[in-house]
Amino acid sequence: MGSLLSEIRRNPLLWMLAFVPIVLIAEKAAPDAHTALFVLAVLAIVPLAALLSHATEAVAEKTGDAVGGLLNATLGNLTELIIAVTALHAGQYMLVKASIAGAIVTNSLFMLGASFLLGGLKYHVQEYNRAGGRLQSGLLLMATVALLAPSAVADLDLAHGEVVTQKLSIGLAVLLIIAYALGLLFSLKTHKELFASEQHGEAEAPWPIGLAIGTLLGVTVLVALVSEIFVESVQKAAETFGMSPAFVGFIIVALVGAAAEMAVAFSAARKNRLDMSVSIALGSASQIALFVAPVLVLLSYVTGPKPMDLQFWPGAVTMVMVSALTASFITNSGRSAWFIGALLLFIYAIFALTLYVVPPGSAA
Amino acid sequence: MGSLLSEIRRNPLLWMLAFVPIVLIAEKAAPDAHTALFVLAVLAIVPLAALLSHATEAVAEKTGDAVGGLLNATLGNLTELIIAVTALHAGQYMLVKASIAGAIVTNSLFMLGASFLLGGLKYHVQEYNRAGGRLQSGLLLMATVALLAPSAVADLDLAHGEVVTQKLSIGLAVLLIIAYALGLLFSLKTHKELFASEQHGEAEAPWPIGLAIGTLLGVTVLVALVSEIFVESVQKAAETFGMSPAFVGFIIVALVGAAAEMAVAFSAARKNRLDMSVSIALGSASQIALFVAPVLVLLSYVTGPKPMDLQFWPGAVTMVMVSALTASFITNSGRSAWFIGALLLFIYAIFALTLYVVPPGSAA
Amino acid sequence: MGSLLSEIRRNPLLWMLAFVPIVLIAEKAAPDAHTALFVLAVLAIVPLAALLSHATEAVAEKTGDAVGGLLNATLGNLTELIIAVTALHAGQYMLVKASIAGAIVTNSLFMLGASFLLGGLKYHVQEYNRAGGRLQSGLLLMATVALLAPSAVADLDLAHGEVVTQKLSIGLAVLLIIAYALGLLFSLKTHKELFASEQHGEAEAPWPIGLAIGTLLGVTVLVALVSEIFVESVQKAAETFGMSPAFVGFIIVALVGAAAEMAVAFSAARKNRLDMSVSIALGSASQIALFVAPVLVLLSYVTGPKPMDLQFWPGAVTMVMVSALTASFITNSGRSAWFIGALLLFIYAIFALTLYVVPPGSAA
Repeated sequence: MGSLLSEIRRNPLLWMLAFVPIVLIAEKAAPDAHTALFVLAVLAIVPLAALLSHATEAVAEKTGDAVGGLLNATLGNLTELIIAVTALHAGQYMLVKASIAGAIVTNSLFMLGASFLLGGLKYHVQEYNRAGGRLQSGLLLMATVALLAPSAVADLDLAHGEVVTQKLSIGLAVLLIIAYALGLLFSLKTHKELFASEQHGEAEAPWPIGLAIGTLLGVTVLVALVSEIFVESVQKAAETFGMSPAFVGFIIVALVGAAAEMAVAFSAARKNRLDMSVSIALGSASQIALFVAPVLVLLSYVTGPKPMDLQFWPGAVTMVMVSALTASFITNSGRSAWFIGALLLFIYAIFALTLYVVPPGSAA
Repeated sequence: MGSLLSEIRRNPLLWMLAFVPIVLIAEKAAPDAHTALFVLAVLAIVPLAALLSHATEAVAEKTGDAVGGLLNATLGNLTELIIAVTALHAGQYMLVKASIAGAIVTNSLFMLGASFLLGGLKYHVQEYNRAGGRLQSGLLLMATVALLAPSAVADLDLAHGEVVTQKLSIGLAVLLIIAYALGLLFSLKTHKELFASEQHGEAEAPWPIGLAIGTLLGVTVLVALVSEIFVESVQKAAETFGMSPAFVGFIIVALVGAAAEMAVAFSAARKNRLDMSVSIALGSASQIALFVAPVLVLLSYVTGPKPMDLQFWPGAVTMVMVSALTASFITNSGRSAWFIGALLLFIYAIFALTLYVVPPGSAA
Repeated sequence: MGSLLSEIRRNPLLWMLAFVPIVLIAEKAAPDAHTALFVLAVLAIVPLAALLSHATEAVAEKTGDAVGGLLNATLGNLTELIIAVTALHAGQYMLVKASIAGAIVTNSLFMLGASFLLGGLKYHVQEYNRAGGRLQSGLLLMATVALLAPSAVADLDLAHGEVVTQKLSIGLAVLLIIAYALGLLFSLKTHKELFASEQHGEAEAPWPIGLAIGTLLGVTVLVALVSEIFVESVQKAAETFGMSPAFVGFIIVALVGAAAEMAVAFSAARKNRLDMSVSIALGSASQIALFVAPVLVLLSYVTGPKPMDLQFWPGAVTMVMVSALTASFITNSGRSAWFIGALLLFIYAIFALTLYVVPPGSAA
């Protein structure tokens, strides 16, 4: 408990945990103040996500290399998963899909680009080990092909469209999860020497395992509670700010969900440890595509009001595809300078601008 | 004749030649047993294709480097060509086009992927000379651009659509054949030192030239006869198994046509000669795109019931494009491990699943 | 003045300057002889463009490295810019857009391909510094993403389509110009050591600064006058030759506008200075996409009959995308042989054939 408190004292981000009780109380007091609730929920989720990621790493450190790697890989996007499951329960499929596509794009363009830019402003040229980036971008490209398939079918066949898309989505979800598992086998077991095993964890005083697991469980519950407020308020708040639902899911939810990982990736880039930044950014993107997305599809059969398929609107497929291709192209060289980061951020800005300008209520 | 028999004795695959007379007799006896005829035809084509490829190599060996290389390159996909010509005669344009697109995809994803996987299960990391792969994937990418062009035009212009598409298809066919010829000039003559000249032929007792040419001619006739049965029965059999015509052409015909080359590519990968596997897989894919496809277009003006164009349905164009891009991206590194192969096979599985799920009779 | 004359005497291309007065007189004498005026205007623009590029370089040399680089980069496509502005004034938006897309495609496929082919016919294998090519192709890829965005939106939203596309186009134009400025900052200032600073200028007797600036201004006026005749006559002449408007803008205008730069790029390739050829070709392409195109959009609000957006027809977007991807893929290796050039020219030929076959008056 002492190490949890000292962690909170050392890390100013965690002071924002004060917003957790505030938002929970505010929701009881003024359930219709959507904009205020939205802002408070964002401010509460960010530190919870950071704490979640600390706790995951602490558990991972205790459980040895292979299991720890597995845990880190599986729970690394727990915040995104909880938010998406909450939106799934609420039947907000558009928001779920936009947040999946947006998380892939945000991680592989914004997180990667900002890491390169921040690192490049401090160091003239940075070099990094490409193996991790190549694996992740290969997995990501495969996953984008899977996302492309149902959208292609959707154009073809209007009669039995929905049934076909659902059958296809389940098949693809199973394929993606198998590919994800094989990718873990490859990177954590058979060829782990290729992947520089510098893990996220910096040399900190280790948490006791009981505290770590307790924190993990407790914070998961808190994230779930706050996510519910977030999902309820986000659409209404977006209308107030004049944002389209696509923009909210794609940009806002994705940035909020990934805030904690971004803090780690950016700080690694400033310390010239770009391997870590690249592997967090692309690892997170490929994990969303290969694990979070198919798990949501399968979960929707168990818990959702109706099944969710993997069919995205064409613009989203294009954006995911361009992001994955750009990220592989860029990380292929193993070198970086500030302008590379700026280029990635420009592409992100183009997408954000496009989604922002599209008027709410249109198909996108 | 002795060497032909000893070849047959040594190679268990060739024992399947027994199915050739069986299928020819069965077709007379029970012309309506489509499913049985289909299975027998497949079992007969596979060893014939193997024998055809042996005979081509034997002729190539006798005729010296340049002519031999040319022969190997031109007749390497003779089986695919014969099957496609038979389907062309029967007016089954959908089957022809699906088998062209499917052969490109099957060679560049399935054959390449399975070679990497089989090699990778035996060797930790495999390195190979990239020059051959780069040339072939460059040619393949160019050819996919040519396939994209008529499909793009098709969307535009409905009034004179067919005429325009046909004019364009002839022009493209001529361009592709010229590019193919220049590619041969480059790899066999002006820059042949870049391409490790390890040819398919292992150190075997050479066939006499007369036997080789005789086998080549005789087997060509047999393949043509069996192909006719195959093409007639495949659609009916497919309906029985619940497969769409697209699936049959794309997956079944392509796998049957390439079976003989796959045997060679896989065995090379197990012997750590991945150069050869890569060059068979990508060479075969680019040859289909740059030689077989345009030859079929031009042939359709001479022999077909009506002209065939190069316009594929959008899904096929996307799949060919993704396959070509993936194959170039993957072979760019010159290194391989089992997971790279698994990734390629996953993309192939995504395509196969998509085509399987699309209900028969739909536009795809 | 003496050095201007000696320049003209040494360079046979500049003898064609005689066509400038001829075309200006012809236009007064026979304003309806469209085909003759078109041919004369082309013959007059080519040497003017060459003179413009000499004058720009002469000014650049006098003004030191950074300012000179900036001048070269900004005025390098002055001819294309003047022709496009003239077409913009005339309200020929289709021609403007086709010439923008065509200039990108022509520079990155035809100019690059012909340089590789011409160099490769003289040298067996050529090596070059990739840094310049990588920067330019990165910028180009980013710009193609920007061109893709409004076209994607156009499909979605028919109600407020035009307003949305215009808002988006202005935003994108601003983003592109900022990216362009940052690219100059990167290549001319913060990381200039990565870009081999061999400039276009060969060791010639330098022009006095007064003459250089005077020539620059005078020739700009002449190009503007001839461009007006060119833009007026090109569509009518095209109908006579049976060309579609898309073909004229994409191929003819783009080839005419880039003729002067091509002469320099090809001569560099023959001298085994492929760095320079690659950097002229890709630099020119990315400059059109990141500077000329957005400047035209912004100018259209000030001077045009109505605002111009950045929405291209789908075929143009595909062609620009394929060109940018192919150019990055090809220049990634830093080595070249004649066949690489031939491949690029084949892709260009496929595009030219497609545009030529499309009948005039169709949507493309």
